[in-house]
Amino acid sequence: MTAVQGERRAVVLLSGGLDSATVLAEVVHQGYRAYALSVAYGQRHSAELAASEAIAAHFGAAAHQVLTVDVGRFGGSALTDQRIAVPENGADEGIPVTYVPARNTLFLSLALGWAEVLDAEAIFIGVNAVDYSGYPDCRPAFIEAFSALAAVATKSGVEGHGPRIEAPLLTLSKAQIITRGTALGVPWPLTVSCYQADSQGRACGRCDSCRLRREGFLAAGQVDPTRYQ
Amino acid sequence: MTAVQGERRAVVLLSGGLDSATVLAEVVHQGYRAYALSVAYGQRHSAELAASEAIAAHFGAAAHQVLTVDVGRFGGSALTDQRIAVPENGADEGIPVTYVPARNTLFLSLALGWAEVLDAEAIFIGVNAVDYSGYPDCRPAFIEAFSALAAVATKSGVEGHGPRIEAPLLTLSKAQIITRGTALGVPWPLTVSCYQADSQGRACGRCDSCRLRREGFLAAGQVDPTRYQ
Repeated sequence: MTAVQGERRAVVLLSGGLDSATVLAEVVHQGYRAYALSVAYGQRHSAELAASEAIAAHFGAAAHQVLTVDVGRFGGSALTDQRIAVPENGADEGIPVTYVPARNTLFLSLALGWAEVLDAEAIFIGVNAVDYSGYPDCRPAFIEAFSALAAVATKSGVEGHGPRIEAPLLTLSKAQIITRGTALGVPWPLTVSCYQADSQGRACGRCDSCRLRREGFLAAGQVDPTRYQ
Repeated sequence: MTAVQGERRAVVLLSGGLDSATVLAEVVHQGYRAYALSVAYGQRHSAELAASEAIAAHFGAAAHQVLTVDVGRFGGSALTDQRIAVPENGADEGIPVTYVPARNTLFLSLALGWAEVLDAEAIFIGVNAVDYSGYPDCRPAFIEAFSALAAVATKSGVEGHGPRIEAPLLTLSKAQIITRGTALGVPWPLTVSCYQADSQGRACGRCDSCRLRREGFLAAGQVDPTRYQ
């Protein structure tokens, strides 16, 4: 990583899914040097991490870090605990068992540390509060609270040049995200959204995330390029 | 970990230093079942992690997790980057190079995830804004901002039973912390405060953390039990 005078840097949280791939495309489109950050947090499968590498390479990210944080040891989520089944019967009432405790707080914390070292202008995260699973840490109130925290938590924040927290998909529907991503050239076949993809990244077609993705392509009037098991 | 009906649980961030050992003693004194959390974040030495294990065992913590998160890969701190020297000439102006970007934000994020799974009442952190190194994430404004974040970031917070963030040392002097810790039976010789302790946990006696600790024992009128190199 060589610092280039005057370059605008952004840290982008990259899961390997449809949303964060669109965010990375947006960041590159806006002229930032993109520093992609993925987290191996004990998720059931590693297909999404492989996807994040391919996507970061596709968009020419300046760097891509994959940090391992084994919060799966805490348990409590269907996404990290093999003993809790991923629901396949549509969205339940309330916050589903696929919720990973404090996940986006953790992801933004890691991004904040890296952003500070890079003196990045912004941190981008692909959370969405429209076609989503009802997770508390995907809502505008969460992004606002983390922004307020970042301003007081860091040296750069206290000095007045801390990173902004940007969530460009926050109020878009899944169909709008797909339309935008297509315009920006997101390579959809590389992305993996499924909560229980197989080792080749093929989707189950039954979980909440698969359902939202399929309905999104349908509503956007586009061919669904997802590879199913 | 067996859940006991009606037990009060708290997650305690435990670094192996003087402050967090005193916090753990306080938590046990207040009747909580203590769940100690330490983080291997790429710090220069592992003596403090060994110390945290001994201290957790001493106080009968219900569990002690040591999570590895290699933020040292981001660089930018004398505590994680061997190429940046630890200052030994007393406190500098401003925020020193021993500052680890977003460290306490990361630690509290991890604690928040565990606290949610445990349905813990509180998260305890040993930050202190009196005899400290000037880190932004040791101030009351930081604790307040994280508390506000926790309330909107988590399922338990949204449901109204999220953990409180407690920082019982926030406004105490180092001497007051030592006086309190002694009253609570903290085994000082087990604690390691030094930024560059050797593999046996012996302190350098010259860094900022050693200086604050030595002055604290002096001001408290107590024998300094620190083992020096």
